[in-house]
Amino acid sequence: MTDFAKTRAKFHIPPGVIYLDGNSLGPLPLAAEQRIAQCLNAEWGQHLVRAWNQAGWMSLPRLLGDKIGALIGAEPGCVVLGDTLSIKVFQALAAGLALNPARHVILSDDGNFPSDLYMAQGLLGLKGGDYRLKIVPPEEIAATLDDSVAVLLLTEVDYRTGRLHDMAALTRQAHACGIVTVWDLAHSAGAMPIDLAGCDVDFAVGCTYKYLNGGPGAPAFIYVAPRLTDRAEPALAGWLGHAAPFAFDLDYRPAASIDRMRVGTPPIIALAALDAALDVWAEVDLADVRRVSLDLGDLMIAEVAAQCPSLELASPLSRSLRGSQVTFRHQEGYAIMQALIERGVIGDFRAPDRVRFGVTPLYIGQGDIRAAVAILKEVMDQRLWDLPRHRTRALVT
Amino acid sequence: MTDFAKTRAKFHIPPGVIYLDGNSLGPLPLAAEQRIAQCLNAEWGQHLVRAWNQAGWMSLPRLLGDKIGALIGAEPGCVVLGDTLSIKVFQALAAGLALNPARHVILSDDGNFPSDLYMAQGLLGLKGGDYRLKIVPPEEIAATLDDSVAVLLLTEVDYRTGRLHDMAALTRQAHACGIVTVWDLAHSAGAMPIDLAGCDVDFAVGCTYKYLNGGPGAPAFIYVAPRLTDRAEPALAGWLGHAAPFAFDLDYRPAASIDRMRVGTPPIIALAALDAALDVWAEVDLADVRRVSLDLGDLMIAEVAAQCPSLELASPLSRSLRGSQVTFRHQEGYAIMQALIERGVIGDFRAPDRVRFGVTPLYIGQGDIRAAVAILKEVMDQRLWDLPRHRTRALVT
Repeated sequence: MTDFAKTRAKFHIPPGVIYLDGNSLGPLPLAAEQRIAQCLNAEWGQHLVRAWNQAGWMSLPRLLGDKIGALIGAEPGCVVLGDTLSIKVFQALAAGLALNPARHVILSDDGNFPSDLYMAQGLLGLKGGDYRLKIVPPEEIAATLDDSVAVLLLTEVDYRTGRLHDMAALTRQAHACGIVTVWDLAHSAGAMPIDLAGCDVDFAVGCTYKYLNGGPGAPAFIYVAPRLTDRAEPALAGWLGHAAPFAFDLDYRPAASIDRMRVGTPPIIALAALDAALDVWAEVDLADVRRVSLDLGDLMIAEVAAQCPSLELASPLSRSLRGSQVTFRHQEGYAIMQALIERGVIGDFRAPDRVRFGVTPLYIGQGDIRAAVAILKEVMDQRLWDLPRHRTRALVT
Repeated sequence: MTDFAKTRAKFHIPPGVIYLDGNSLGPLPLAAEQRIAQCLNAEWGQHLVRAWNQAGWMSLPRLLGDKIGALIGAEPGCVVLGDTLSIKVFQALAAGLALNPARHVILSDDGNFPSDLYMAQGLLGLKGGDYRLKIVPPEEIAATLDDSVAVLLLTEVDYRTGRLHDMAALTRQAHACGIVTVWDLAHSAGAMPIDLAGCDVDFAVGCTYKYLNGGPGAPAFIYVAPRLTDRAEPALAGWLGHAAPFAFDLDYRPAASIDRMRVGTPPIIALAALDAALDVWAEVDLADVRRVSLDLGDLMIAEVAAQCPSLELASPLSRSLRGSQVTFRHQEGYAIMQALIERGVIGDFRAPDRVRFGVTPLYIGQGDIRAAVAILKEVMDQRLWDLPRHRTRALVT
């Protein structure tokens, strides 16, 4: 059994704060500062440009890729870090379309994170012709899979509601129709066990600043199934994806490995922070994370139902259909969240009316959930949200 | 007159090292560690997700964009940070092609950095049809500009030789032929005055880890001329380039500003390091940098010609044709550079036979150049390079 008191001690949670927004940005791992200082002083400062070899910088995207790979059920050597999740979505979609050239449809759902849909739209704009993006409600995906679809692009956990897609079943059904699958793990990597290899997924992508706690804007990752490595065409053909980057050939020739999904120079300082964050996982069993996270979610749902009945549950009640967040609807959701934040309960708001709470046992316990709901009850009962300052929208909501 | 003793004191140069590779990776600015610690502890640690608003994280890509803009002659509000240089090249090329839809040729030269050419190849692969990349020798660019060319993609300073393109003249000539220009400033930003607005450049891109000293893999930048902002189509249509990212619409609608060239979540820790690096420029006049850099280059060329005659100059002798590096050719270039590095003179090697030395007055003086050439003379006279260990190629050369 994972010792969650021990994991909690590895993060900085400010006094007076109950942090229920790790599904947006994970908290600061205490080891990050020292690891970055080492990167700055012992590596960059002392070795200068030689650190690319001497400090192993050039290998970091693969090294950390394997660390993340172990958390998402990937085979070794199939995950690489770099860029942002949006860029990795673009790479996976472009490679997926190239693997299925006779078909011109990308299928996704309207619960997908908009950036995934936008990147698909941008890609299809470049492709031109009759390429198109088909968007259906999440529950209609299974019925829409047919042999017109080239690529299925889904985010496993819905960013708004926490609703969980069945990765194994949908991938199996997609493959039966000859469809290439791209799974976005933004809200599932680090939140629950994932079995990419077991589900026979083709491509997967994810970010590392949510449940993996890599820091604001931490690098993204991409997984390519080993059976596709040699055939996945890199549309973003950067020099570090070249078979021989330091030959400086004029023509692009993709690396024979997952390295072909690398693009430009890797962000070393950000990777150092992420490296420290990933060390937390050495003593964590994701099955424990999943079980306790669902327990915490159940507790929150029950407490809110009992104490704050005007908040309508937007997440699935069923454990098997829910990720690691609990979302409620209220027309004053924005102001309610501002009032909560002012009182140290940090969740977030997603338009038009959703208040979201991420629950992860790495640094959240049952006491936190009970305390957060008590404050929420106070906010609701006393209409503490009903103040002009709570209704003024900030840039980032 | 810029006080270069003062700028030198702002960097960590290890004792015994003469650092002539700032054209690959600039040295550590002493202020970086504290600025990052502030980002980690006071911002991420204390504010958690609220830091996107409260610590101004969301505005950093534009704020630093303007700081860099001031160094490259950009109008305010026309530069934004993010991603890597390769990604920014892709964005600029895609937007350039979309502005010139009747033409299907990207023109570049064989002295361009290969990643720029690779990204063009990747983009053209997506576009399909008769889109193609035309590559000619640098000196033939002017004669090749005609009304078949959609986009001219050039790196101002040749990464191998330091040879300088005439940005003003080539942009003027390109525009006369109806060609959109994309200038890569990788080896010129921070090395010399640049006048993007005055040259009427359409798009410019660059990295920040060379002469701008932002750290390994620091974020890249892109410039879009204000007259094109509203028409530059973002092929990499990420949510932070959306007109209203937090409305979470299903359809992409580009921001009305340079923000449309943003893609995913900005790399905040890397931006913090870059921010500290950019502060060094507050008291620096780029005209002084240029003049002293050329003086240092002239000195190095003269000293090497006098003391190490077997090294053949590969850089232009003329000051008006040379960037901020000096390159020599020797068939044992790789081993020579390894022997130099072992003795604390850090330059680099570029296949097949070039030894490169970056010269920047920010932390290099005449004494350093003389000392470096004295060591080079020793290496050459005593054949100190002629050892097996110097001939063993490292991963990154």
